[in-house]
This record gives sequence, structure tokens and C-alpha cells, in this order.
Amino acid sequence: MEVREIGEFGLIERLRRALTGGHPRLLVGIGDDAAVWRAEGRFLLFTIDSLVSGVHFLPGRHPWEDVGWKALAVNISDIMAMGGVPEVAVVALALPPDMPLDHVDSLYQGLEECARTYDVTLAGGDIVQAPQVSIGVALVGRALEGPEGPLLLRRDGARPGHVVAVSGPLGESAAGLRRLLAGAPADDPLVRVHLRPHPPLALGQEAARKGIPCAIDISDGLLQDLGHVARMSGVGIELWAHRIPIPQEVWSAFPREALTLACAGGEDYQLALVGREDIVLSLTPPPTVIGRVIEGEGVRVLDERGHDVTPQERGWNHLRQR
Amino acid sequence: MEVREIGEFGLIERLRRALTGGHPRLLVGIGDDAAVWRAEGRFLLFTIDSLVSGVHFLPGRHPWEDVGWKALAVNISDIMAMGGVPEVAVVALALPPDMPLDHVDSLYQGLEECARTYDVTLAGGDIVQAPQVSIGVALVGRALEGPEGPLLLRRDGARPGHVVAVSGPLGESAAGLRRLLAGAPADDPLVRVHLRPHPPLALGQEAARKGIPCAIDISDGLLQDLGHVARMSGVGIELWAHRIPIPQEVWSAFPREALTLACAGGEDYQLALVGREDIVLSLTPPPTVIGRVIEGEGVRVLDERGHDVTPQERGWNHLRQR
Repeated sequence: MEVREIGEFGLIERLRRALTGGHPRLLVGIGDDAAVWRAEGRFLLFTIDSLVSGVHFLPGRHPWEDVGWKALAVNISDIMAMGGVPEVAVVALALPPDMPLDHVDSLYQGLEECARTYDVTLAGGDIVQAPQVSIGVALVGRALEGPEGPLLLRRDGARPGHVVAVSGPLGESAAGLRRLLAGAPADDPLVRVHLRPHPPLALGQEAARKGIPCAIDISDGLLQDLGHVARMSGVGIELWAHRIPIPQEVWSAFPREALTLACAGGEDYQLALVGREDIVLSLTPPPTVIGRVIEGEGVRVLDERGHDVTPQERGWNHLRQR
Repeated sequence: MEVREIGEFGLIERLRRALTGGHPRLLVGIGDDAAVWRAEGRFLLFTIDSLVSGVHFLPGRHPWEDVGWKALAVNISDIMAMGGVPEVAVVALALPPDMPLDHVDSLYQGLEECARTYDVTLAGGDIVQAPQVSIGVALVGRALEGPEGPLLLRRDGARPGHVVAVSGPLGESAAGLRRLLAGAPADDPLVRVHLRPHPPLALGQEAARKGIPCAIDISDGLLQDLGHVARMSGVGIELWAHRIPIPQEVWSAFPREALTLACAGGEDYQLALVGREDIVLSLTPPPTVIGRVIEGEGVRVLDERGHDVTPQERGWNHLRQR
């Protein structure tokens, strides 16, 4: 059997099972946006993500500075999705020997800009030779703490009666990627969103402080990411197509596919929040409520008349046979 | 200009310069074995290392279980070289879709064995698609602490008058790799050392507790690794060829190249310690003194009559033109 037959999430589940038992220090292990463990006196968050040339970006299309920005931003997004504060990152670069040095400089530049923007310390790294470029970033942060322990936005915290809300527009990144691949320049507004995601870090922290129990960042696609929440919480999720914030630019550029891009395009790096409606709406800026948690399982999208309009595509699953 | 013209260490130096300023929380940044930063009440260590198929291992030659072991062990070696205690790791796997699932299971198995052996918690990870396998591991640990702060084995702590000592035999791993590539089985004793490095973690911690100021792990090759110590400490290092612990098996297998394998072969994952002789010799088990720190620069190897016998090869520098 080959890995494509079980895909990314099957492989993660298999790793989880291969690891014997838990660890008393480990609060949240494999399966959430970031791991959480107890160090003396504080709760640390830990995440890792890689961008691989030809898979996550195309040299010649994606400017190296933006690749550097994104390599760190996707990790910041994971810490945001736990409600935490990112602190220190290390970088593992794999480069082919004939890579022009100014491309590496641009990559560094983008990493540095992102680190400065989000107040993250780039503390070290490792550089190895490889046939193609990949950039791995590992990021450690800390959880905010309340009187009863760490304040965490977990994937398993959704309960029937909660609303589901998102922090910003969806589908722009996927639309931007399509435009980029079709030849649009890097300064096209949709392309910019794709190249430079800005996870709304402060919103995740505010949500954690106010006791929102559940969140995930939208990286692989809204349906797939909320599918993790539904499965891990043991609930169903109902989304309302007409409430999903899809910008006019996305409708104009891809009129027939806008809903699919917003539901399954991925790489939005917005925050999906699940919790009590009054608390969700008290956040700044208030997220857009797009659905609710129900008894049951899975994620469905309904139109205004209650008809099921769930797109067939659900999002990105690395390695999965398609 | 291409990256091969400046190589791994040139690229690391360039990254160090690209990052604006330091950070008040950061005690040790780019350039040592691991980064060190101050979290409330403790000092954390952070390192990352990747193994790339075709560069660090050859599928079909290197058993996957051993690749998994080594991917974590090389990071434990970095924490050892700071005198710290490894705690929590995350894994970034890049896999081709046609990789057989039982290879991934073996890889997991090796990771898990290493984690169990060294009491490290594998807390999460990320799996992406790529044309060839790579395994990135990021590891966080903590520094031991004394009354005046963290007890760290730093690369810049060597002073004239110190001795240089190593924790165990050198050259076995490089000899084992040669034998493996020549067709020796995975249970050949030298091949075993290459496939399953066992960094002497407790020795690094004992050295830190006893106030040894300086150490590095021997990963790229003794001369190159001690070259970092010499440069960062602003000193010279003189090694005595006849004192370098080269096992009889290495001499027998490669009589004419044994010294080069021990000095430049790399991947020994032994600890090189630099400090006061009486303290170094008080460690358990006592390391082997192989040289001394002098005024000057660079690393030289002398024979019993004081003649310079420094091998031309110094060790592994990723991406460097050869």
C-alpha cells in the first residue's frame, strides 16, 4: 500500500497511534493546530510547517520574498488558532547548490519582515542541500493563562448551539493563486492576498481571553478544516452559503466557482471561531457568523432555502489520491 | 552568484546579518548548536535539523527505522552540545505519494524508539507532499540552571590553557557509511554506529553542571566543528593525532584513511568538550583528551614529533563547491 491511499490525515492518525501513550507534561498532542505542553510555570505551544517548491509555490511565479513571509506566517497562523502568542522560530532550509544567492537573500528578507511584523524572534536554523527548495519553520509560543489554566482554542471544543464564524473574507487566496498561475502580476490585489497571508493574531488572543472554546485556522480549505472540528468535537456543522464572506472581486473573477473557492480553496489563513454567539460577536472586529453547530456529524453548506449546496471539493489533503 | 559559492556556513552568516538586531529575550542566537531564550522562569533551547533522501541517506541502503531514529538523534545531539535537557519535538515529513506505507511505519517506529530512549515527547507535526523524502525535526529543551543563570556549553567559551576532549571513538560512523555503500549489511558493527548514533546526553549535562564552558557535537567532522569553536572563541586549537580515539576496526577497514575519517568524516555525534583539564577528567566516563587550546587561530593536527599532519579534508559543508 502506498501513502497516497491514506493521505496526509491518515498518516497523521497513524503517527499518533505509533507513539506510545501520552506524556504527563503534554496537554494537547498530535491533531490540533499546535502542541501544548506544560513547562514550569507556563504553557508552551509548538508547531512546524514546511513549504516545498513545486508543491506550495512555483519558482518564477512566487516571489522569493513572499515565500519567506509565508513560510513563517503559516506557522503564526497555527499559534493564532490556539489563541497563543508566537515567540521564537527556527528555520530549516533545503536548497539546491545552483540557487542564485539573491533569491536566498530575498527569502531571508521576507522571513525577517514577517518576524518583525508579528514580533517573532528568528533564533537559528539549519541549511542542507537538496534537489529542490524547501523551507521548514518551527515556532514556539505561549498560551495565554486564566485563573484556571491555559486559555486554548481547541479543535474539540465545538458544542451544539454554538455559532461558527470567520475572521475575514474567504476565497481570495485561491482566486489569487489561479490568477497568478494564469500570468497575473504579483501586485494584483487577489494575488497579494495569496502571496502574503496576514493571520489575524490579535483576534485569536482576544477570543481565548474571552473564553471562546474552539477555533481552527483556514489553511487547507473551510470545509476540510471545519471537518476536523466536527470530527474531533463529535458534532455536525451547518454553514449558510449566503453568509460566507466572499468578496466581489472573487465573484467577478470566477463567477461560477466562487463558492467552491471560498469553501475549499484554502490558504486564507483566516480564523474560524466556534462558540457562544454573544461572545463571538463581542470580538474586535466582529467576525462574520456563517453557520452553527448541530447534533450529528460532518459539514454541510445550505442555501437560503435550506437546500444542500455543499461543494464536492473539500480542500487540500497532501498525498491523497484524487 | 550561486549558493554553492558561499556554502552552508556562508549562508548561515548571511542569515544572521539579515536579521535586524537581537532580541532582549534571546541569549544565544544563530551560530551555536541551539538557540537559547529566556521564558518566564526558565531558559529554553531550540534546534532544528533535516535529513534529506539522497543527501543524508539512501533509500534501499539506509533502513527507514534507522532514518527515523537518526532524524531525532541529531537534534538531541544539538541539545546535548549546549548541556541541556531535550523535552518536546515536532516532525515535518515530506513524502512522495508512491512511498510504501510500511516504510513510513518503519520511520515512525525509529522516531518513537529514539524518543523513548531519550525521554523526548513527540508532540505533533506536519506532512506534505514532495518529490523525495525529507524529515525535519524541531526540538525544544531546557538549560540546566545554576545560582547565576543558565549553565550552557557554548561555542565561544574556549580559552588558551583549556584542554580539548572527546566523549568517544571517532571515525566509526564515516567508516560505517563507506562499508554500507560498499554493500555491507545493516548489522555490520561499524554500519550500526553510522545508522544509530547515540549522543551521550548525560555527559553534556554533567559537564554543564560542573562548569565546563564550551562544547560542540561532532556532526560535520571534528576539524570543521572545532573550527567553529576556534573562530567563535578567537583562539587556536592543537590536536594530537596519536591521542585521537580511533578504534582498531576503523584502522583495519581503512588503514590509510583512518585519521582522515576520524578528523573529517563526521556524524560521530560524540561530544567535544573544551575546559579545565581537572574538570574534564572528572566527568563520568572521563572523556579522552586529544589536544589543547592555544593563542592563535584555526585547528591543526600534530603527530608525536610535532609535525603538522592535518588532513586536507575538514568535514561536511552543505552546498559548498568542492
